[in-house]
Amino acid sequence: MPTTIRKAVAGDVPLILEFIRGLALFEREPDAVTATEADLLRDGFGPEPYFHCLIADYDARTSDQTGSQPAGFAFYFFNYSTWTGRPGLYLEDLFVNPEFRGLGIGKALLAQVAAIAVEKGCPRLQWEVLDWNTPAVDFYASLGAVFLDEWRNVRMTGEAIARLAAQAPGLTEKAEAQF
Amino acid sequence: MPTTIRKAVAGDVPLILEFIRGLALFEREPDAVTATEADLLRDGFGPEPYFHCLIADYDARTSDQTGSQPAGFAFYFFNYSTWTGRPGLYLEDLFVNPEFRGLGIGKALLAQVAAIAVEKGCPRLQWEVLDWNTPAVDFYASLGAVFLDEWRNVRMTGEAIARLAAQAPGLTEKAEAQF
Repeated sequence: MPTTIRKAVAGDVPLILEFIRGLALFEREPDAVTATEADLLRDGFGPEPYFHCLIADYDARTSDQTGSQPAGFAFYFFNYSTWTGRPGLYLEDLFVNPEFRGLGIGKALLAQVAAIAVEKGCPRLQWEVLDWNTPAVDFYASLGAVFLDEWRNVRMTGEAIARLAAQAPGLTEKAEAQF
Repeated sequence: MPTTIRKAVAGDVPLILEFIRGLALFEREPDAVTATEADLLRDGFGPEPYFHCLIADYDARTSDQTGSQPAGFAFYFFNYSTWTGRPGLYLEDLFVNPEFRGLGIGKALLAQVAAIAVEKGCPRLQWEVLDWNTPAVDFYASLGAVFLDEWRNVRMTGEAIARLAAQAPGLTEKAEAQF
């Protein structure tokens, strides 16, 4: 099989940022990416990483292209389900470069993410999809995914966070003694 | 102010589970909680916790109830934004016991969570709300939160994860040498 998947290493950071920008372009937000290589290196490749990343390489095996080329990536981290009392796997980004689409690379990445969920004992694998991305919606449904359309995603940023934070009562201390 | 907020300690695990069950009841899923005290203790209070928790205590200061009582909680963890290159704060649960509602305790908890987002350098604070919970939707909007309704939440569980995982190509190794 010409697709191989590996865990990203620190040296992949420039590539990861390229994939992030490629996905933002697809999502019609090409200017939304302000992340830098230094950010990703600091947050993903230290002793307590905030995220994990898989890289898919594709070996085209044509006469003018020998050896494998990076074709796509999956970017994930762990969330937590209070109902199940288990960490869940949250897939933040899944992206395959346009020239490598239709080769099963996206499905291979998603399957590898599912295998990691099994390995880590995660009862849930979650992600988001843009409502106009019908091919993706249909693909996910065909794999048995369900859509939690009763839940609305809420976000607060910048000034709104600062205004609210200014009203925080502050934290009081409590000793561990009651345990 | 009769409301104080503190970080949860291991001894709060039974209380946290009560709050989780109270919220599930409100969300019309009273039987959905399978988490145990052992789960929460293992995953939230070890050296690398999957989640963090704030407890709000309310001091009613009536003649028959002196001292403070636990009134509500906020349960959160950190996700990651590939666009901003920063961790975000994800609020999984926010709950105030029915007998303590209308006292500003929910807002105090949310404000404290916002203060933690500021402290940790998180440019985003995110959570979800059920679409029929109009009072909560209006409250969040009044605080300047926005609703990302273009995004659909997708979830895979149990057998679907296992079926997909069985198709994973496996991980290949790559040396760090290229860095």
